[in-house]
Amino acid sequence: MSNPDQVLRAEEAPLRPPDAPAGDAYARAGVDISAGNAAVERYREVTSGWRHPSQVGAIGGFSGLFKLPGDETRLLVGSTDGVGTKILIAAAARRYGSVGADLVNHCVNDILVVNATPLFFLDYLAVGKLDPEVAGAVVGGVQAACRAHECALLGGETAEMPGLYRPDHFDLAGTIVGMVDASALPDPREVGEGDAIVGLPSVGLHTNGYSLARALIPEERWATPFPAYAAGATYLDALLAEHPSYYRAVRAIEGAAHVKAMAHITGGGLLENVPRTLPENCKAVFEQSRWNVPPLMTELVGLGDLDEKERYRTFNMGIGYTLIVALADAQKAVDAWPGAAVVGWVERRRAGDPPVVVHPARV
Amino acid sequence: MSNPDQVLRAEEAPLRPPDAPAGDAYARAGVDISAGNAAVERYREVTSGWRHPSQVGAIGGFSGLFKLPGDETRLLVGSTDGVGTKILIAAAARRYGSVGADLVNHCVNDILVVNATPLFFLDYLAVGKLDPEVAGAVVGGVQAACRAHECALLGGETAEMPGLYRPDHFDLAGTIVGMVDASALPDPREVGEGDAIVGLPSVGLHTNGYSLARALIPEERWATPFPAYAAGATYLDALLAEHPSYYRAVRAIEGAAHVKAMAHITGGGLLENVPRTLPENCKAVFEQSRWNVPPLMTELVGLGDLDEKERYRTFNMGIGYTLIVALADAQKAVDAWPGAAVVGWVERRRAGDPPVVVHPARV
Repeated sequence: MSNPDQVLRAEEAPLRPPDAPAGDAYARAGVDISAGNAAVERYREVTSGWRHPSQVGAIGGFSGLFKLPGDETRLLVGSTDGVGTKILIAAAARRYGSVGADLVNHCVNDILVVNATPLFFLDYLAVGKLDPEVAGAVVGGVQAACRAHECALLGGETAEMPGLYRPDHFDLAGTIVGMVDASALPDPREVGEGDAIVGLPSVGLHTNGYSLARALIPEERWATPFPAYAAGATYLDALLAEHPSYYRAVRAIEGAAHVKAMAHITGGGLLENVPRTLPENCKAVFEQSRWNVPPLMTELVGLGDLDEKERYRTFNMGIGYTLIVALADAQKAVDAWPGAAVVGWVERRRAGDPPVVVHPARV
Repeated sequence: MSNPDQVLRAEEAPLRPPDAPAGDAYARAGVDISAGNAAVERYREVTSGWRHPSQVGAIGGFSGLFKLPGDETRLLVGSTDGVGTKILIAAAARRYGSVGADLVNHCVNDILVVNATPLFFLDYLAVGKLDPEVAGAVVGGVQAACRAHECALLGGETAEMPGLYRPDHFDLAGTIVGMVDASALPDPREVGEGDAIVGLPSVGLHTNGYSLARALIPEERWATPFPAYAAGATYLDALLAEHPSYYRAVRAIEGAAHVKAMAHITGGGLLENVPRTLPENCKAVFEQSRWNVPPLMTELVGLGDLDEKERYRTFNMGIGYTLIVALADAQKAVDAWPGAAVVGWVERRRAGDPPVVVHPARV
């Protein structure tokens, strides 16, 4: 999900509404973009009076940066996120094991774009009626995903709030804190014409676009077969596919090639996340023939008759994370991690050009 | 609100259920203590397999401590909390300005017990339908309370989740990160027989006991006069009184006296929070005649016919924060901050003694 107030506080970042990346279809699903933009504008106003001197404008606003007191070189990086309405699908299906990984991995990826290494995580679990087995399964998933990153699960809060949540509903959010050396911060100003964009594949919606997906695929169909995802699979399997962490992939690619800038493709898709990693005079040109669109997105695009702009703003459409490298480094980068592929290029952006262009597959 | 998984991960801390401090009355209000205890037990199981080597057992589990990498002396301190069902009262009354302060001040106090200085904060605001004015008012309150502590509002997440929240409902949680020198960590092992307990006054329920309060004072009465709180006041004014920060009071007292241990009186009240600051062979003995019980609590105790155990476990009953000092330091401590008072003593705990005793007012 997008972080509007983080975006707000990172002045160079574009304005984006909360979890409301797309157009008419999204609005019909109950998520209001104009309200999101207006909220971001209000946040700008209410926070304009003061800013902590140690606070550093984050690249693209995926996370917030804070100079470590008494340390010349290191910064703390913080990011808060939720799982969004994917939680409603998990609750309906009574599958509680993977939402913790969705949350932690999303947060890990958000601070990874500034090259931060996770230190610790704290979770917030709010329930209508506390079921110890459910809560244990959720927190167990959080713990497992933290452990996979050698990130401490430092604490958390479990709140039972009858009246705010239905007895069978819950919400899950979390905060990650990491650290990065100032010298390791990617710098989008290095990005220039001719650079290659390396993409890492997504496995589904990750944690974005679920309000629209729930509107297009009604609950009655969730348990029915969806063989396009996998043999014997249901829509639930595809809808609840775990948001992957790109931590190991990125570290492997960084070991093989110099990475200039990175984007986590969350709410807003390629169209709104990749521009955060580009200088003003550059645009990103993607060729969709270079990667596979997950079957769930193909299905949703068909069900909603979503135009190109809408689909690339609402969904990741198969690319979960992008890294920009010099063309000369591109082969080394894609060789460093299975599934990594050159999915586009950086070109000169002329007056009137959009910052991102996606050429549909030429099949 | 209590932090069961933080408590869990701090092995020396007692087990406490989430936001479920009291007995039968609380259960009747929809908050289940036995489920809370069972959830904490499940958290213990699912997190028992691995613990980050930099993670330090927190004193009493109000927050989590993490050794700063590459630094011999300093620790990062993190705590996540929510506002609880106080949020439902704020939503019904359309008063959005103070819940941000409730949240930030609660978190500040939680890390203050280990003497941490706030560095930065991140908020999570989840809504059923995004109203930019409401969101702006909430985040404005968060920002103002952060600024009052020179704490950066580093980022946040606003999530619009139709289907999970009613259009007029919202939830608010947040995470604070602070820092403390290892040499400044309070050590409850210093606490001994004859020490004085200094209390700082509460202004009302703070952020605990609202499910019970909402059950005892039905919504129809919220807008009616409650002159016991203040001239011209309604129940709403008393119910929504802002959770205060004890930061300046504690720093002033620490400047005047050596403080051995501190407790933030949240869910569980004096009975369950103060024991976290005592060695095994000591008990805390409070004399209620030494402080004023806020009129809202007197009213709630009467309405619910709450016995002593129930009232002191559910509500703070007038004491929001406690500090333990040597008897010789007690006068200096109370002179350092208006409203600070000696409210009890540390005595020897004999076999079978409860860790906290409250003597009712002898009027």
